[in-house]
Amino acid sequence: MTETATFVKDTATVRNGVDTTTMFATLDAIKAQPEIAKFQFRARNRWLSGAYNRSTIKDFYAACGEDTSRTEAFVLDAGEPAILLGTDTGPNPAEYLLHALAACVTTSLVYSAAARGVRLTSVESTLEGDLDVQGALGINSEDYRNGYEQIRMTIRISGDAPAEKLREVVRRGTDRSVVFDSIANGVPIAVDVIAE
Amino acid sequence: MTETATFVKDTATVRNGVDTTTMFATLDAIKAQPEIAKFQFRARNRWLSGAYNRSTIKDFYAACGEDTSRTEAFVLDAGEPAILLGTDTGPNPAEYLLHALAACVTTSLVYSAAARGVRLTSVESTLEGDLDVQGALGINSEDYRNGYEQIRMTIRISGDAPAEKLREVVRRGTDRSVVFDSIANGVPIAVDVIAE
Repeated sequence: MTETATFVKDTATVRNGVDTTTMFATLDAIKAQPEIAKFQFRARNRWLSGAYNRSTIKDFYAACGEDTSRTEAFVLDAGEPAILLGTDTGPNPAEYLLHALAACVTTSLVYSAAARGVRLTSVESTLEGDLDVQGALGINSEDYRNGYEQIRMTIRISGDAPAEKLREVVRRGTDRSVVFDSIANGVPIAVDVIAE
Repeated sequence: MTETATFVKDTATVRNGVDTTTMFATLDAIKAQPEIAKFQFRARNRWLSGAYNRSTIKDFYAACGEDTSRTEAFVLDAGEPAILLGTDTGPNPAEYLLHALAACVTTSLVYSAAARGVRLTSVESTLEGDLDVQGALGINSEDYRNGYEQIRMTIRISGDAPAEKLREVVRRGTDRSVVFDSIANGVPIAVDVIAE
Protein backbone atom coordinates (compact mmCIF):
# COMPACT_ATOMS: atom_id res chain seq x y z
CA MET A 1 0.00 0.00 0.00
CA THR A 2 2.09 2.91 -1.25
CA GLU A 3 -0.93 5.12 -1.87
CA THR A 4 -0.36 7.72 0.82
CA ALA A 5 3.37 8.00 0.19
CA THR A 6 2.78 8.44 -3.52
CA PHE A 7 0.16 11.15 -3.05
CA VAL A 8 2.44 13.05 -0.68
CA LYS A 9 5.15 12.94 -3.38
CA ASP A 10 2.74 14.42 -5.95
CA THR A 11 4.69 17.61 -6.61
CA ALA A 12 5.37 19.37 -9.91
CA THR A 13 7.31 16.55 -11.59
CA VAL A 14 5.17 13.77 -10.12
CA ARG A 15 1.67 14.06 -11.58
CA ASN A 16 -1.05 11.45 -10.99
CA GLY A 17 1.61 9.39 -9.23
CA VAL A 18 3.74 9.32 -12.40
CA ASP A 19 7.22 10.83 -12.36
CA THR A 20 6.99 12.88 -15.55
CA THR A 21 10.70 13.72 -15.54
CA THR A 22 11.50 10.00 -15.71
CA MET A 23 8.69 9.50 -18.25
CA PHE A 24 10.03 12.08 -20.68
CA ALA A 25 13.61 10.82 -20.12
CA THR A 26 12.41 7.29 -20.98
CA LEU A 27 10.76 8.52 -24.19
CA ASP A 28 13.97 10.38 -25.16
CA ALA A 29 16.09 7.30 -24.41
CA ILE A 30 13.91 5.12 -26.68
CA LYS A 31 13.99 7.69 -29.47
CA ALA A 32 17.79 7.72 -29.26
CA GLN A 33 18.10 3.92 -29.03
CA PRO A 34 14.93 2.22 -30.36
CA GLU A 35 16.17 -1.31 -29.65
CA ILE A 36 15.56 -0.81 -25.91
CA ALA A 37 11.81 -0.73 -26.68
CA LYS A 38 11.62 -4.50 -27.19
CA PHE A 39 9.84 -6.25 -24.32
CA GLN A 40 8.92 -9.83 -23.66
CA PHE A 41 6.42 -10.58 -20.89
CA ARG A 42 5.93 -14.08 -19.51
CA ALA A 43 3.70 -16.25 -17.38
CA ARG A 44 4.03 -19.84 -16.12
CA ASN A 45 0.90 -21.78 -15.29
CA ARG A 46 0.41 -25.06 -13.44
CA TRP A 47 -2.79 -27.07 -13.24
CA LEU A 48 -3.81 -28.00 -9.69
CA SER A 49 -7.19 -29.77 -10.02
CA GLY A 50 -10.32 -29.26 -12.12
CA ALA A 51 -10.69 -25.59 -12.96
CA TYR A 52 -8.09 -24.65 -10.35
CA ASN A 53 -4.77 -23.54 -11.81
CA ARG A 54 -2.10 -21.06 -10.82
CA SER A 55 0.20 -18.72 -12.68
CA THR A 56 3.46 -17.26 -11.45
CA ILE A 57 4.75 -14.08 -13.02
CA LYS A 58 8.19 -12.68 -12.36
CA ASP A 59 10.87 -12.26 -14.99
CA PHE A 60 10.62 -10.32 -18.24
CA TYR A 61 12.90 -9.00 -20.96
CA ALA A 62 13.32 -5.24 -21.38
CA ALA A 63 15.92 -2.69 -22.48
CA CYS A 64 18.13 -5.35 -24.11
CA GLY A 65 18.34 -7.59 -21.06
CA GLU A 66 16.61 -9.62 -18.39
CA ASP A 67 14.89 -7.52 -15.76
CA THR A 68 15.97 -8.44 -12.23
CA SER A 69 14.02 -5.87 -10.25
CA ARG A 70 11.45 -8.32 -8.88
CA THR A 71 12.62 -10.36 -5.94
CA GLU A 72 9.46 -12.46 -5.71
CA ALA A 73 6.97 -13.83 -8.21
CA PHE A 74 3.36 -12.69 -8.33
CA VAL A 75 1.00 -15.63 -7.84
CA LEU A 76 -2.43 -15.68 -9.51
CA ASP A 77 -5.07 -18.32 -8.82
CA ALA A 78 -7.79 -19.03 -11.34
CA GLY A 79 -10.98 -21.03 -10.93
CA GLU A 80 -14.57 -21.35 -12.01
CA PRO A 81 -17.76 -20.85 -10.00
CA ALA A 82 -19.92 -23.88 -9.21
CA ILE A 83 -22.19 -23.32 -12.20
CA LEU A 84 -19.14 -23.83 -14.42
CA LEU A 85 -18.03 -26.94 -12.51
CA GLY A 86 -15.36 -25.35 -10.35
CA THR A 87 -14.92 -24.54 -6.67
CA ASP A 88 -14.39 -20.77 -7.08
CA THR A 89 -10.67 -20.86 -6.31
CA GLY A 90 -10.21 -17.51 -8.07
CA PRO A 91 -11.70 -15.30 -10.77
CA ASN A 92 -12.29 -17.26 -13.93
CA PRO A 93 -10.07 -16.73 -16.99
CA ALA A 94 -12.70 -14.68 -18.85
CA GLU A 95 -12.97 -12.37 -15.82
CA TYR A 96 -9.17 -12.04 -15.71
CA LEU A 97 -9.32 -10.90 -19.34
CA LEU A 98 -11.69 -8.06 -18.36
CA HIS A 99 -9.38 -7.07 -15.51
CA ALA A 100 -6.36 -7.00 -17.86
CA LEU A 101 -8.29 -4.68 -20.17
CA ALA A 102 -9.49 -2.37 -17.38
CA ALA A 103 -6.04 -2.16 -15.80
CA CYS A 104 -4.28 -1.40 -19.10
CA VAL A 105 -6.68 1.30 -20.29
CA THR A 106 -6.57 2.91 -16.84
CA THR A 107 -2.76 3.03 -16.71
CA SER A 108 -2.55 4.25 -20.30
CA LEU A 109 -4.94 7.11 -19.68
CA VAL A 110 -3.30 8.05 -16.37
CA TYR A 111 0.11 8.24 -18.09
CA SER A 112 -1.42 10.18 -20.96
CA ALA A 113 -2.98 12.67 -18.54
CA ALA A 114 0.35 13.05 -16.70
CA ALA A 115 2.13 13.82 -19.98
CA ARG A 116 -0.51 16.44 -20.89
CA GLY A 117 -0.48 18.21 -17.53
CA VAL A 118 -3.94 16.97 -16.52
CA ARG A 119 -4.31 16.14 -12.83
CA LEU A 120 -6.86 13.38 -12.32
CA THR A 121 -9.01 13.01 -9.23
CA SER A 122 -10.58 9.64 -9.94
CA VAL A 123 -10.87 6.99 -12.63
CA GLU A 124 -13.31 4.13 -12.26
CA SER A 125 -14.47 1.67 -14.85
CA THR A 126 -17.02 -1.11 -15.09
CA LEU A 127 -16.71 -3.85 -17.68
CA GLU A 128 -19.20 -6.35 -19.02
CA GLY A 129 -18.44 -9.20 -21.39
CA ASP A 130 -21.21 -11.13 -23.14
CA LEU A 131 -20.80 -14.79 -23.83
CA ASP A 132 -23.03 -17.64 -24.95
CA VAL A 133 -21.33 -20.82 -23.76
CA GLN A 134 -23.01 -22.94 -26.43
CA GLY A 135 -19.96 -22.06 -28.52
CA ALA A 136 -17.20 -22.96 -26.07
CA LEU A 137 -19.06 -26.10 -24.91
CA GLY A 138 -19.33 -27.32 -28.50
CA ILE A 139 -23.14 -27.48 -28.37
CA ASN A 140 -23.75 -24.96 -31.15
CA SER A 141 -20.59 -23.75 -32.83
CA GLU A 142 -22.40 -22.54 -35.93
CA ASP A 143 -24.33 -19.76 -34.23
CA TYR A 144 -21.96 -18.93 -31.38
CA ARG A 145 -18.26 -18.20 -31.22
CA ASN A 146 -16.19 -19.49 -28.29
CA GLY A 147 -15.01 -16.08 -27.12
CA TYR A 148 -16.75 -12.95 -25.94
CA GLU A 149 -19.33 -11.56 -28.37
CA GLN A 150 -18.76 -8.04 -27.11
CA ILE A 151 -17.11 -6.20 -24.25
CA ARG A 152 -18.50 -2.92 -22.92
CA MET A 153 -16.41 -0.59 -20.82
CA THR A 154 -17.82 2.45 -19.01
CA ILE A 155 -15.17 4.83 -17.72
CA ARG A 156 -16.00 7.51 -15.17
CA ILE A 157 -13.25 10.12 -14.93
CA SER A 158 -12.78 13.38 -13.04
CA GLY A 159 -9.91 15.84 -12.78
CA ASP A 160 -8.79 19.46 -13.13
CA ALA A 161 -9.66 19.79 -16.82
CA PRO A 162 -12.81 20.41 -18.87
CA ALA A 163 -14.94 17.37 -19.74
CA GLU A 164 -13.76 17.45 -23.37
CA LYS A 165 -10.11 17.33 -22.30
CA LEU A 166 -10.86 14.39 -19.96
CA ARG A 167 -12.60 12.58 -22.82
CA GLU A 168 -9.53 13.18 -24.99
CA VAL A 169 -7.34 11.67 -22.24
CA VAL A 170 -9.55 8.54 -22.22
CA ARG A 171 -9.37 8.34 -26.02
CA ARG A 172 -5.57 8.43 -25.82
CA GLY A 173 -5.74 5.75 -23.14
CA THR A 174 -7.72 3.34 -25.30
CA ASP A 175 -5.76 4.27 -28.45
CA ARG A 176 -2.44 3.49 -26.76
CA SER A 177 -3.35 0.51 -24.59
CA VAL A 178 -1.43 -2.72 -25.19
CA VAL A 179 -4.29 -4.90 -23.97
CA PHE A 180 -7.05 -2.90 -25.69
CA ASP A 181 -5.30 -3.33 -29.04
CA SER A 182 -4.50 -6.98 -28.34
CA ILE A 183 -8.15 -7.83 -27.63
CA ALA A 184 -9.81 -5.47 -30.12
CA ASN A 185 -7.60 -6.52 -33.02
CA GLY A 186 -6.38 -9.96 -32.00
CA VAL A 187 -2.91 -11.45 -31.57
CA PRO A 188 -1.46 -14.53 -33.32
CA ILE A 189 -0.99 -17.31 -30.74
CA ALA A 190 1.47 -20.11 -31.47
CA VAL A 191 0.97 -23.29 -29.42
CA ASP A 192 3.64 -25.93 -28.91
CA VAL A 193 2.74 -29.18 -27.14
CA ILE A 194 5.05 -31.54 -25.27
CA ALA A 195 3.11 -34.73 -24.49
CA GLU A 196 4.82 -37.14 -22.12
CA MET B 1 -6.64 -25.07 -0.88
CA THR B 2 -9.09 -27.80 -1.84
CA GLU B 3 -6.45 -29.82 -3.66
CA THR B 4 -6.22 -32.79 -1.31
CA ALA B 5 -9.95 -33.08 -0.78
CA THR B 6 -10.54 -32.98 -4.52
CA PHE B 7 -7.96 -35.64 -5.28
CA VAL B 8 -9.39 -37.93 -2.61
CA LYS B 9 -12.80 -37.48 -4.26
CA ASP B 10 -11.35 -38.49 -7.65
CA THR B 11 -13.47 -41.58 -8.14
CA ALA B 12 -15.20 -42.80 -11.28
CA THR B 13 -17.50 -39.77 -11.75
CA VAL B 14 -14.90 -37.22 -10.65
CA ARG B 15 -12.08 -37.19 -13.18
CA ASN B 16 -9.24 -34.62 -13.13
CA GLY B 17 -11.14 -32.94 -10.30
CA VAL B 18 -14.15 -32.43 -12.59
CA ASP B 19 -17.49 -34.00 -11.66
CA THR B 20 -18.34 -35.57 -15.01
CA THR B 21 -21.88 -36.48 -13.93
CA THR B 22 -22.59 -32.80 -13.30
CA MET B 23 -20.73 -31.87 -16.49
CA PHE B 24 -22.87 -34.11 -18.72
CA ALA B 25 -26.04 -33.01 -16.87
CA THR B 26 -25.08 -29.37 -17.54
CA LEU B 27 -24.58 -30.08 -21.24
CA ASP B 28 -27.97 -31.84 -21.40
CA ALA B 29 -29.66 -28.96 -19.58
CA ILE B 30 -28.28 -26.42 -22.06
CA LYS B 31 -29.32 -28.55 -25.03
CA ALA B 32 -32.86 -28.70 -23.61
CA GLN B 33 -32.97 -24.99 -22.73
CA PRO B 34 -30.36 -23.04 -24.76
CA GLU B 35 -31.21 -19.67 -23.16
CA ILE B 36 -29.45 -20.70 -19.94
CA ALA B 37 -26.15 -20.59 -21.88
CA LYS B 38 -26.02 -16.79 -21.88
CA PHE B 39 -23.38 -15.43 -19.50
CA GLN B 40 -22.20 -11.96 -18.66
CA PHE B 41 -18.95 -11.58 -16.76
CA ARG B 42 -17.96 -8.31 -15.10
CA ALA B 43 -15.10 -6.41 -13.49
CA ARG B 44 -14.94 -3.07 -11.72
CA ASN B 45 -11.66 -1.19 -11.64
CA ARG B 46 -10.52 1.80 -9.59
CA TRP B 47 -7.39 3.84 -10.13
CA LEU B 48 -5.24 4.25 -7.00
CA SER B 49 -2.12 6.12 -8.16
CA GLY B 50 0.17 6.03 -11.18
CA ALA B 51 0.16 2.51 -12.63
CA TYR B 52 -1.49 1.15 -9.49
CA ASN B 53 -5.12 0.18 -9.96
CA ARG B 54 -7.40 -2.49 -8.54
CA SER B 55 -10.23 -4.60 -9.89
CA THR B 56 -12.96 -6.28 -7.90
CA ILE B 57 -14.76 -9.23 -9.42
CA LYS B 58 -17.84 -10.80 -7.90
CA ASP B 59 -21.24 -10.89 -9.57
CA PHE B 60 -22.07 -12.31 -12.97
CA TYR B 61 -25.13 -13.28 -14.97
CA ALA B 62 -25.75 -16.95 -15.77
CA ALA B 63 -28.63 -19.36 -16.35
CA CYS B 64 -31.20 -16.56 -16.78
CA GLY B 65 -30.37 -14.81 -13.51
CA GLU B 66 -27.82 -13.14 -11.29
CA ASP B 67 -25.39 -15.55 -9.68
CA THR B 68 -25.26 -15.17 -5.90
CA SER B 69 -22.84 -17.98 -5.05
CA ARG B 70 -19.90 -15.70 -4.24
CA THR B 71 -20.01 -14.15 -0.80
CA GLU B 72 -16.90 -12.03 -1.30
CA ALA B 73 -15.32 -10.24 -4.24
CA PHE B 74 -11.96 -11.26 -5.66
CA VAL B 75 -9.50 -8.37 -5.55
CA LEU B 76 -6.79 -7.99 -8.19
CA ASP B 77 -4.02 -5.40 -8.02
CA ALA B 78 -2.22 -4.27 -11.14
CA GLY B 79 0.97 -2.29 -11.49
CA GLU B 80 4.05 -1.72 -13.61
CA PRO B 81 7.69 -2.43 -12.82
CA ALA B 82 10.07 0.50 -12.34
CA ILE B 83 11.24 0.44 -15.95
CA LEU B 84 7.65 1.20 -16.97
CA LEU B 85 7.30 3.97 -14.37
CA GLY B 86 5.42 1.99 -11.73
CA THR B 87 6.18 0.67 -8.27
CA ASP B 88 5.44 -3.02 -9.01
CA THR B 89 2.16 -3.15 -7.10
CA GLY B 90 1.09 -6.21 -9.09
CA PRO B 91 1.57 -7.95 -12.42
CA ASN B 92 1.17 -5.53 -15.28
CA PRO B 93 -1.93 -5.67 -17.50
CA ALA B 94 -0.09 -7.36 -20.39
CA GLU B 95 1.08 -10.07 -17.99
CA TYR B 96 -2.49 -10.52 -16.70
CA LEU B 97 -3.53 -11.11 -20.31
CA LEU B 98 -1.04 -14.01 -20.58
CA HIS B 99 -2.35 -15.45 -17.31
CA ALA B 100 -5.95 -15.26 -18.56
CA LEU B 101 -4.93 -17.16 -21.67
CA ALA B 102 -2.96 -19.82 -19.79
CA ALA B 103 -5.73 -20.36 -17.24
CA CYS B 104 -8.46 -20.66 -19.86
CA VAL B 105 -6.64 -23.09 -22.13
CA THR B 106 -5.68 -25.19 -19.12
CA THR B 107 -9.24 -25.42 -17.80
CA SER B 108 -10.64 -26.11 -21.26
CA LEU B 109 -8.23 -28.98 -21.86
CA VAL B 110 -8.74 -30.43 -18.38
CA TYR B 111 -12.52 -30.45 -18.93
CA SER B 112 -12.06 -31.90 -22.39
CA ALA B 113 -9.87 -34.68 -20.99
CA ALA B 114 -12.44 -35.40 -18.26
CA ALA B 115 -15.19 -35.73 -20.87
CA ARG B 116 -13.05 -38.10 -22.94
CA GLY B 117 -12.04 -40.34 -20.07
CA VAL B 118 -8.41 -39.20 -20.04
CA ARG B 119 -6.86 -38.92 -16.58
CA LEU B 120 -4.22 -36.20 -16.52
CA THR B 121 -1.17 -36.24 -14.27
CA SER B 122 0.17 -32.76 -14.94
CA VAL B 123 -0.36 -29.74 -17.16
CA GLU B 124 2.14 -26.92 -17.18
CA SER B 125 2.47 -24.07 -19.61
CA THR B 126 4.87 -21.22 -20.25
CA LEU B 127 3.82 -18.15 -22.18
CA GLU B 128 5.81 -15.41 -23.86
CA GLY B 129 4.40 -12.27 -25.41
CA ASP B 130 6.50 -10.03 -27.66
CA LEU B 131 5.98 -6.32 -27.64
CA ASP B 132 7.80 -3.27 -28.98
CA VAL B 133 6.65 -0.35 -26.85
CA GLN B 134 7.43 2.17 -29.59
CA GLY B 135 3.84 1.56 -30.68
CA ALA B 136 2.06 2.01 -27.37
CA LEU B 137 4.27 4.97 -26.43
CA GLY B 138 3.40 6.74 -29.69
CA ILE B 139 7.04 6.96 -30.77
CA ASN B 140 6.67 4.89 -33.95
CA SER B 141 3.09 3.86 -34.68
CA GLU B 142 3.80 3.16 -38.34
CA ASP B 143 6.09 0.22 -37.78
CA TYR B 144 4.76 -1.09 -34.45
CA ARG B 145 1.29 -1.90 -33.22
CA ASN B 146 0.32 -1.14 -29.62
CA GLY B 147 -0.52 -4.70 -28.67
CA TYR B 148 1.43 -7.92 -28.58
CA GLU B 149 3.04 -8.88 -31.87
CA GLN B 150 2.83 -12.56 -31.03
CA ILE B 151 2.15 -14.86 -28.10
CA ARG B 152 3.81 -18.25 -27.78
CA MET B 153 2.45 -20.92 -25.49
CA THR B 154 4.28 -24.13 -24.69
CA ILE B 155 2.12 -26.75 -22.98
CA ARG B 156 3.68 -29.76 -21.25
CA ILE B 157 1.08 -32.44 -20.54
CA SER B 158 1.16 -35.94 -19.10
CA GLY B 159 -1.53 -38.50 -18.31
CA ASP B 160 -2.80 -42.04 -18.79
CA ALA B 161 -3.15 -41.80 -22.56
CA PRO B 162 -0.86 -42.05 -25.59
CA ALA B 163 0.94 -38.86 -26.63
CA GLU B 164 -1.33 -38.44 -29.66
CA LYS B 165 -4.42 -38.55 -27.46
CA LEU B 166 -2.89 -35.99 -25.10
CA ARG B 167 -2.13 -33.74 -28.06
CA GLU B 168 -5.74 -34.07 -29.20
CA VAL B 169 -6.89 -33.03 -25.70
CA VAL B 170 -4.72 -29.90 -25.94
CA ARG B 171 -6.12 -29.13 -29.40
CA ARG B 172 -9.64 -29.36 -28.01
CA GLY B 173 -8.55 -27.10 -25.16
CA THR B 174 -7.31 -24.34 -27.46
CA ASP B 175 -10.21 -24.84 -29.93
CA ARG B 176 -12.79 -24.40 -27.16
CA SER B 177 -11.16 -21.77 -24.98
CA VAL B 178 -13.10 -18.52 -24.46
CA VAL B 179 -9.94 -16.47 -23.91
CA PHE B 180 -7.93 -18.14 -26.70
CA ASP B 181 -10.66 -17.27 -29.22
CA SER B 182 -11.09 -13.77 -27.75
CA ILE B 183 -7.39 -12.97 -28.13
CA ALA B 184 -6.67 -14.87 -31.34
CA ASN B 185 -9.68 -13.48 -33.20
CA GLY B 186 -10.42 -10.26 -31.34
CA VAL B 187 -13.52 -8.92 -29.62
CA PRO B 188 -15.38 -5.65 -30.34
CA ILE B 189 -14.93 -3.28 -27.37
CA ALA B 190 -17.43 -0.45 -26.85
CA VAL B 191 -16.23 2.39 -24.62
CA ASP B 192 -18.52 4.85 -22.91
CA VAL B 193 -17.02 7.84 -21.06
CA ILE B 194 -18.57 9.83 -18.23
CA ALA B 195 -16.39 12.92 -17.64
CA GLU B 196 -17.20 14.94 -14.52
